[in-house]
Amino acid sequence: MSDSLLEAISESRCFGGAQRRYRHRSSVLGCSMHVSVFLPPQALAGARVPALYWLSGLTCTDETMVQKAGAQRLAAALGLALVAPDTSPRGEGVPDDPDGAWDFGLGAGFYLNASEAPWATHYRMHDYVVAELPALLESALPLNERRGVSGHSMGGHGALICALRNPGRYRSVSAFAPIAQPSTCPWGEKAFSRYLGPERGSWAAWEACSLIAQASERLPILVDQGSADPFLDQQLKPDQLRSAAAAAGHPLELRLQPGYDHSYFFIASFIDDHLRHHAAALLA
Amino acid sequence: MSDSLLEAISESRCFGGAQRRYRHRSSVLGCSMHVSVFLPPQALAGARVPALYWLSGLTCTDETMVQKAGAQRLAAALGLALVAPDTSPRGEGVPDDPDGAWDFGLGAGFYLNASEAPWATHYRMHDYVVAELPALLESALPLNERRGVSGHSMGGHGALICALRNPGRYRSVSAFAPIAQPSTCPWGEKAFSRYLGPERGSWAAWEACSLIAQASERLPILVDQGSADPFLDQQLKPDQLRSAAAAAGHPLELRLQPGYDHSYFFIASFIDDHLRHHAAALLA
Repeated sequence: MSDSLLEAISESRCFGGAQRRYRHRSSVLGCSMHVSVFLPPQALAGARVPALYWLSGLTCTDETMVQKAGAQRLAAALGLALVAPDTSPRGEGVPDDPDGAWDFGLGAGFYLNASEAPWATHYRMHDYVVAELPALLESALPLNERRGVSGHSMGGHGALICALRNPGRYRSVSAFAPIAQPSTCPWGEKAFSRYLGPERGSWAAWEACSLIAQASERLPILVDQGSADPFLDQQLKPDQLRSAAAAAGHPLELRLQPGYDHSYFFIASFIDDHLRHHAAALLA
Repeated sequence: MSDSLLEAISESRCFGGAQRRYRHRSSVLGCSMHVSVFLPPQALAGARVPALYWLSGLTCTDETMVQKAGAQRLAAALGLALVAPDTSPRGEGVPDDPDGAWDFGLGAGFYLNASEAPWATHYRMHDYVVAELPALLESALPLNERRGVSGHSMGGHGALICALRNPGRYRSVSAFAPIAQPSTCPWGEKAFSRYLGPERGSWAAWEACSLIAQASERLPILVDQGSADPFLDQQLKPDQLRSAAAAAGHPLELRLQPGYDHSYFFIASFIDDHLRHHAAALLA
């Protein structure tokens, strides 16, 4: 049991709740991981609360969102926990991009289960985020089993595939500036061809635009995308998600926010709308 | 003129306003400086707005508060600009702590004008923050001449001395976890003895608890201090400020916030109260 325990490494009071950071051993990933958790005041007072899982983007860690998004204020008022995992396995023995690039390997796990060597041993972020981590947190912390999932960029796509692949597991889903279709953009092609191999037939199981066509559950998706995002045209391509959702009849509210870029200043500006979107489902 | 110009180096839309970062040459400091400025939507629409100057603490930069405090949301709603200078002069030729310590020199200017070599040439953060920077920003940006000042830790004390030394220059003042009396704590004694020399008689002109005794203006001070701040007893000592304000009859609201520490999670939790405190004076 000891290797499944959460080790608290920091705690700060925040909006009457607790912003904590934990270290734990992940058997799915085969390494030690950090996870940041915000518990709202209601949880400290004894209630079991729903959790919004936040999947961060390339180069980020479990600390990025909790430091930069300003999400705790409304999460505390609503009574939502915020769970922020890291963006890849890390540590000794975990392989990285051979050139040390920032868009693959460490900090760039893409929330999938890799099938190819040498990645398949550790890069299993999907199973970690969807199953191992919630089981651990729900057993150790005052969380109930109501879960929402959101994220940014690589993590925005991650949120979409976590929800689309696992009907019944989440009650709500949203994304900021998601990589809408990894198979047709440079970031995604690089990552998928290495994690999943060159055979593109295997990629569809990890792509939101493919998964949405056959989804057995139609959770409404909220997406915000900045119009001044420097990655909009080459990497993010929200119109592909729009087309896929329309073809499938999947409810999607995709908002193009004029003048906003890819930064956490954009996320902070609209995080409250996303928290309310999730709260409507998680607290219903 | 060219060395007084603001060079915009980044801009992100944020809550309908603009979060910008500028580089400029400071003649007071004798070096190039960065400053972060948030302009609320009202300023982008043509109004001249008041500015709250935020003075950060040891090791921070002009970017710390704008990334971590979550202040832009309410500042945008109220119509307040936020100005965040760096915490010391920087760059080639600017001397640093000989041992590279984080509590003196670079990142630790203490918002005073140094009198001792080799610091006196560049370490003139008081004149920079109080005079040079506002003059530059008010000439180049849609800011009126209504100013408030706040800050954290070293910068909390900096905010107090900027206001107390310059009656009429600020309409409002507040602080988070200020170093209440530098002459009686390790951080302050180290900095003051080097910047100002060993003769303690010269220190009083840069100490809030001394300045408050003879202040010709009684701007109400709002201070928040976390009860679980690890620096509370040895470095911050808010009771010394409380005593000095009481003796002088200076209006001070000092709130001890149970369980909060020294981090930006603490600041974020109460920044809205401070923004409203400043707005009441700046927008009256």
